[in-house]
Amino acid sequence: MAGTDASKRAEAGGGPAIVLVRPQLGENIGFAARAMLNCGLTDLRLVAPRDGWPNDKARAASAGGDRVIQGARVYAETAEAVADLNLVYATTARPRGMAADVVSPREAAAGLHRAVDAGQAAGVLFGPERSGLTNDDIALADAIMTVPLNPGFSSIQLGHAVMILGYEWFQACEETAPAETPNETLAEGKNRPVAKADLIGFFEHLERELDACGFLHPPEMRPTITRNLRTLFQRASLTDREVRTLRGVVAGLTSHRDRGDKE
Amino acid sequence: MAGTDASKRAEAGGGPAIVLVRPQLGENIGFAARAMLNCGLTDLRLVAPRDGWPNDKARAASAGGDRVIQGARVYAETAEAVADLNLVYATTARPRGMAADVVSPREAAAGLHRAVDAGQAAGVLFGPERSGLTNDDIALADAIMTVPLNPGFSSIQLGHAVMILGYEWFQACEETAPAETPNETLAEGKNRPVAKADLIGFFEHLERELDACGFLHPPEMRPTITRNLRTLFQRASLTDREVRTLRGVVAGLTSHRDRGDKE
Repeated sequence: MAGTDASKRAEAGGGPAIVLVRPQLGENIGFAARAMLNCGLTDLRLVAPRDGWPNDKARAASAGGDRVIQGARVYAETAEAVADLNLVYATTARPRGMAADVVSPREAAAGLHRAVDAGQAAGVLFGPERSGLTNDDIALADAIMTVPLNPGFSSIQLGHAVMILGYEWFQACEETAPAETPNETLAEGKNRPVAKADLIGFFEHLERELDACGFLHPPEMRPTITRNLRTLFQRASLTDREVRTLRGVVAGLTSHRDRGDKE
Repeated sequence: MAGTDASKRAEAGGGPAIVLVRPQLGENIGFAARAMLNCGLTDLRLVAPRDGWPNDKARAASAGGDRVIQGARVYAETAEAVADLNLVYATTARPRGMAADVVSPREAAAGLHRAVDAGQAAGVLFGPERSGLTNDDIALADAIMTVPLNPGFSSIQLGHAVMILGYEWFQACEETAPAETPNETLAEGKNRPVAKADLIGFFEHLERELDACGFLHPPEMRPTITRNLRTLFQRASLTDREVRTLRGVVAGLTSHRDRGDKE
């Protein structure tokens, strides 16, 4: 049952961030906050909550989880909410046919523990109640987390999804880490997983250059192409150094173009 | 993910009974019913629900779990509700000092599976929101189930408690299912993992262009840089289609250069 390690962690609140993307009902934010605190998680992030923030219904539904509600941070965009994170999972009801790794909550919890133990910042994205995360949200994540459930009735309450992840996180506080996940082999220092802000900086650099050369035309194809590119690079669990190398590659490949334009 | 065994079980509804003892809020009964159906459980039993039965709030909160709500059976006493069961767990927030075995939800799920597989009827008791099960209720059970959680904030929502047990039940249905690996969910055809020959073709294309722009200078650095680039792309487990996209990216980024050179 609840051991010393788990208790210490629960008090320290050093677990992954829970990022609710465009949540609709205040009650569900409160249920999620309560579930978080049940599991020793306190870093709640809200992306564009539909009914604004603060939200009285969220506070009431948290049933004592005020600490989590009061500490919640609000962002306009998912990219801002994950900017400082090194490892991000995106929760979806089922694989979307995107070429990303798919893990169970138990595997995600193990991956989150390894990341946090290595001094990295980690988080999990949960989408809006009705529609779930968009493909653009998912493209910001290292891997997809799916809860294996009754295929005939797999739509689960937002708070329940947070509870399952938090529960697995808390159980894993007392177990030794098993399977393999993104970033596992990475060392410290320059080889640490890139912060999402720097990864997004690379994406935007690449996409700017691809716009300039016409690769992303016609415009209706642009979202699909950029998403596919982001997804494949996310899957590589890039380090800081690798992202700098890739920015150098893009700058190198386009350097002659600038000279040519000036000539 | 959802395997055949789990799907079959979910359809058959042959899992343990969920017994809500003196539940107070209709919403919580609905949340529990939804969580049950998410996990393929359909046998809902209510002992003396405070607000009577049927309950419109319960139906609304079940969000489509009508089958479970409509099939719910109501009893006056806990003893009646468990009368036909062979194995019963009683959920409590923490051990009560009673001389009963205390198991985790994972252990309870394993026990429930063993019982059901042996043709026995099994169930789990959940107490009222505020007070929990009485010692008399617990005395009807074979063992206590406790969810290990943050000792500083361990009071969980009734629906969350049902979800955790149901989740562990469902996971145990498919324990033999193999873990997900990169690209496992990818379809055939364009989304098949790239043949190494095509991957190397991309590497050589990229490196040719990086030679041309001077990125791989000085020569003594070339092997390290190219190896690092190849490694990071290998790690992404690229598909056929993705490699073609990446070749397009390199061609696009360097297309203006060729024009510039000619000018």
